[in-house]
Amino acid sequence: MTQQSLPDGRRPANEGPRAAARNRAALIAAAREIYAESGLEAPLSAIARRAGVGQGVLYRHFPDRAAVALAVLEENVRQIEQAAAAPDADIAQVLGVLTWHQTESAAFISVLHADGAGGHHGTPAFALALSQRVERALRRHLPDDHRLAAEPDDLMIAVGMVSGAVTGPTREQRERRALAAWRLLGVEVGPVRPFEG
Amino acid sequence: MTQQSLPDGRRPANEGPRAAARNRAALIAAAREIYAESGLEAPLSAIARRAGVGQGVLYRHFPDRAAVALAVLEENVRQIEQAAAAPDADIAQVLGVLTWHQTESAAFISVLHADGAGGHHGTPAFALALSQRVERALRRHLPDDHRLAAEPDDLMIAVGMVSGAVTGPTREQRERRALAAWRLLGVEVGPVRPFEG
Repeated sequence: MTQQSLPDGRRPANEGPRAAARNRAALIAAAREIYAESGLEAPLSAIARRAGVGQGVLYRHFPDRAAVALAVLEENVRQIEQAAAAPDADIAQVLGVLTWHQTESAAFISVLHADGAGGHHGTPAFALALSQRVERALRRHLPDDHRLAAEPDDLMIAVGMVSGAVTGPTREQRERRALAAWRLLGVEVGPVRPFEG
Repeated sequence: MTQQSLPDGRRPANEGPRAAARNRAALIAAAREIYAESGLEAPLSAIARRAGVGQGVLYRHFPDRAAVALAVLEENVRQIEQAAAAPDADIAQVLGVLTWHQTESAAFISVLHADGAGGHHGTPAFALALSQRVERALRRHLPDDHRLAAEPDDLMIAVGMVSGAVTGPTREQRERRALAAWRLLGVEVGPVRPFEG
């Protein structure tokens, strides 16, 4: 890998491929926490500090602020896909992981809204692509007789509905409201948790 | 009424009380249309022009941009209250008027979200007050055995859920999605229309 100069003029420390993967994962996990606490405008230096790496390492993985945010969103979607790929997966479990991310991240909720925007001018292509990946992961486990299988749009309309219910200052309150929303929809949801393999 | 100078140095034309009420209503109706077409950043001059009054008249009624937007939101809520006060009102009809405003106005949806924010720092007091007026208007017609009467929060959670489903570039698409959302909730909704007395 070619060494590039950083914004502050230093060169990044060398990382082996394993350390690189570990650092990238630590940066995404740290960014997720920092965003949840302070919003998307939090300084990148806080993310590097939380991840226990230098800012040089952060810049090697992510050229700018948007790249960090996108990586977090992509990781949310990947967790939902992994939940769907687990050997004993069912729709309730996958919805539980989806719901956890809805209660964690307003930015992720914007991504899910891209679905209903139907090519609306201003909907970023990456958001639409991520939303479609979420839909595929859910649909893979949607039984034909499921409450949300009657009409083609129902599944993602329901996801948008739960997003609309997820408000409140604490994650606990947002989770309580999300679970009330699924109850009102008559849809069973498994444990609300991140997917940890 | 004391005549005041306007930002542009002119004095407003004199309005009798009837003309004043008529002009105010025309300005609010024009602002509603212009906001739906161009968003809240539309110039005030466009609103005055659409209402068929001079900018001086607009400034006499509304000191600034925020006052116009607030008046439109207040008028949305008043329509819902009027629908609830109609002699033959029932919950389905009031929900139909509410749903019309949800499909019309993203700003109105933000107001409804104030409910779930539960005193979250940054929720404007006016939004919370308007949201509570909507809740009172609905609750007045909510039968004890209604699907949304089981738990105290269910009614406004459901309203937030429908708001979450209302996306799309056209009002027709947003209405279609709103009606799908009420169907998924198992809640009957009357005609989706503004309240016109």
